Amino acid sequence: MSDTHKTLVIGLFGFGVVGEGVYKVLKQTPSLKATIKKVCIKNPEKERDGPAELFTTDKRELLDDAEINVIVEVINDADAAFEIVSEAMTNKKSVVSASKKMIAEHLCELLILQQATKMSLLYEAAAGASIPIIRNLEEYYDNDLLHSMRAIVNGSTNFILTKMFTGNLNYFQALLLAKQLGFAETDPVLDVEGHDAAHKWSFLLTHAFGIVVNHHTLVYTGIQRIDAGDARFAAEKEYEIKLVAEAKKMENDMIAAFVLPQFVNKTDPLAFVRDENNGVVIESGFADRQFFYGKGAGSFPTASAILSDLSALRYDYKYEYKKLYHHAPCSLSNDFFLEVYVSYDSVRHVPTEQFAIIRTTHRRQDRCYLIGTISFKTLQNSTWWRDPDISLIVMPDGVNHAAAAQLKLSAHRSVEENKYEYFPR
Amino acid sequence: MSDTHKTLVIGLFGFGVVGEGVYKVLKQTPSLKATIKKVCIKNPEKERDGPAELFTTDKRELLDDAEINVIVEVINDADAAFEIVSEAMTNKKSVVSASKKMIAEHLCELLILQQATKMSLLYEAAAGASIPIIRNLEEYYDNDLLHSMRAIVNGSTNFILTKMFTGNLNYFQALLLAKQLGFAETDPVLDVEGHDAAHKWSFLLTHAFGIVVNHHTLVYTGIQRIDAGDARFAAEKEYEIKLVAEAKKMENDMIAAFVLPQFVNKTDPLAFVRDENNGVVIESGFADRQFFYGKGAGSFPTASAILSDLSALRYDYKYEYKKLYHHAPCSLSNDFFLEVYVSYDSVRHVPTEQFAIIRTTHRRQDRCYLIGTISFKTLQNSTWWRDPDISLIVMPDGVNHAAAAQLKLSAHRSVEENKYEYFPR
Repeated sequence: MSDTHKTLVIGLFGFGVVGEGVYKVLKQTPSLKATIKKVCIKNPEKERDGPAELFTTDKRELLDDAEINVIVEVINDADAAFEIVSEAMTNKKSVVSASKKMIAEHLCELLILQQATKMSLLYEAAAGASIPIIRNLEEYYDNDLLHSMRAIVNGSTNFILTKMFTGNLNYFQALLLAKQLGFAETDPVLDVEGHDAAHKWSFLLTHAFGIVVNHHTLVYTGIQRIDAGDARFAAEKEYEIKLVAEAKKMENDMIAAFVLPQFVNKTDPLAFVRDENNGVVIESGFADRQFFYGKGAGSFPTASAILSDLSALRYDYKYEYKKLYHHAPCSLSNDFFLEVYVSYDSVRHVPTEQFAIIRTTHRRQDRCYLIGTISFKTLQNSTWWRDPDISLIVMPDGVNHAAAAQLKLSAHRSVEENKYEYFPR
Repeated sequence: MSDTHKTLVIGLFGFGVVGEGVYKVLKQTPSLKATIKKVCIKNPEKERDGPAELFTTDKRELLDDAEINVIVEVINDADAAFEIVSEAMTNKKSVVSASKKMIAEHLCELLILQQATKMSLLYEAAAGASIPIIRNLEEYYDNDLLHSMRAIVNGSTNFILTKMFTGNLNYFQALLLAKQLGFAETDPVLDVEGHDAAHKWSFLLTHAFGIVVNHHTLVYTGIQRIDAGDARFAAEKEYEIKLVAEAKKMENDMIAAFVLPQFVNKTDPLAFVRDENNGVVIESGFADRQFFYGKGAGSFPTASAILSDLSALRYDYKYEYKKLYHHAPCSLSNDFFLEVYVSYDSVRHVPTEQFAIIRTTHRRQDRCYLIGTISFKTLQNSTWWRDPDISLIVMPDGVNHAAAAQLKLSAHRSVEENKYEYFPR
């Protein structure tokens, strides 16, 4: 078989941490028979670990070279990346990309480009770095009925949360450490405010459920408002706090999806995901519950995912987006309820009347909290929970179908009405 | 792309738990466009959940039917299975099999058959059931440098060990429960004595390292001699006991491999694998550490793996055994040392002079133990540790390269000689 494999002549865009990783990793894997012909960089002054004639600042030298049949794109600028990728595919080159922001922001155009040019666009490295999640969703869960997918897809926030819990650091100390170790960008907003996780979640939803959604329309936030009191609550209840991307099929076959901080039980596989690692838990009709875990960032883990994409290109592998094109694609639901914990300085900032039920409220010297059930639609349409002094964390198994939530609710009301502090709507 | 997919017409051998699972699962996935034309069974008297005309006891009706292009083989009899598979491949039919014993016992012939007939033989379901480990080794780790692979590949022993630890059952109670719940065969010898794990490990070694080895030549045992005292020791040290299949690349690029009970730290991903689940931890040069976890047995999890193989057959997917054919294949080493815990009724049954060093011995009223370092070669050539009243358990990170072990040893001897009970050889 091996002699029928395509020979890969690569044009590489970007020579930062990931780009240099790809260069080094390819040098160590001659068996792949893939060579980098040219590397396009932005700053020609910077010293590079490679022969000078390899580098250029002129993208045309890569895009117009007919011998180059694969473009590997690992640059930071999402708009420039999209331009490169589109032009490469139009020029009949296959593309491997690690730019999650670019893919999320241009998912729709990229889907159309793939259909129109019939070229491969692979991006395993863009979500979960070393975890082969996209390929497994495409190939392994092709025909299985996915019930839910829950994941930790941002290593830097997970690193910070781990250090807040086990290293007894506060948020700012943990963030500083993450920066020092290279697990967070100098400007960490994309990570800590959840944008990066939402980017990745948007295209994972496409592969898992055939949903094509702009990440802006997803409900998401990051870990920036989690405070020591929340960590204390978690410790008391033997929970951990994780930034969880969740997608769950409801009874009407629509998908409840969001990226929010969440308490997880110690028995939840996601509780096992520490430091800068990522993890994905998939529940499906046939395969039952599966868990994939690995390094979510870093030069070599990311390069290894790119390598596996290159390897697949040798036999012209393409994503088929089977859940989108070959099955009835799912759509997003906002008709469900979330059980949430909300901590705050003053209850005046929390519109308690928005809650369907409030199960408990607790006043501490330092900070107060309540636990209640709120409709997702309400949350989607309000902004109070994004206030700097309010922290909202989803309870374990906090997603409830509307009907189920109503049922629970009336049971609560009739049987145990006295037991709960209840704010009527 | 989808219209270029092959239409699959299936001949199914076996209609037990797995076979019926495949039948049901296929009915629920019309998108696969795969139909079962005929099912070959052994006992025509048994009532089946399917139309009578589907079943036959004559294997020729499947093997000689030119329209049938795929044989799915899920029968228990390894010899009969091998015959079916060989004939099917010779008759230009692709094969999907779940028979780990058959594959392990005939691995070499099956490799040759694949080369000779150019037909696909896929068997994802044979190891780790729902975990897509073979496909990931083939595709994802194709070009990565595997340092080690450690796994729990037998669900029934893992179930028993979990119940011994968390359910406070003894070995026989746990085994009984496993049988009642259908996680162990009526004759559990294949599982509890480690044969099943060794079967799976033998062909996983082929995909991971290009090693072709008869499972009989692997050093392995099961959990049949683990007793309550061992469990107590583990609890004291905050270890868990697992039946671990291990393969680790040594400094000379040879592979240390075995299947033995092992203490694992709580931070080891394998400690997370409870009940009838399986798990695989892979450490590699680029992707770093990855962990795959899922149901290791059961009708639907197994059927789901078979489904993913069928799905791959539509585009003529074949295993390439890249580590065997495209790289320099590795070979097995016995030139290394193991740190082990050995518990026993009487020290007279333990040839302590075989140990390079004995770090500690402990006498309890009920049972005694020692912890020491022994060369793998010695273990391989002795039988004392297979005696019914001796239990040998590998310590965490117990595999040491010969040179490293010697170094440790001399350090122990020179610096801390007095601290250890030391039996000279």
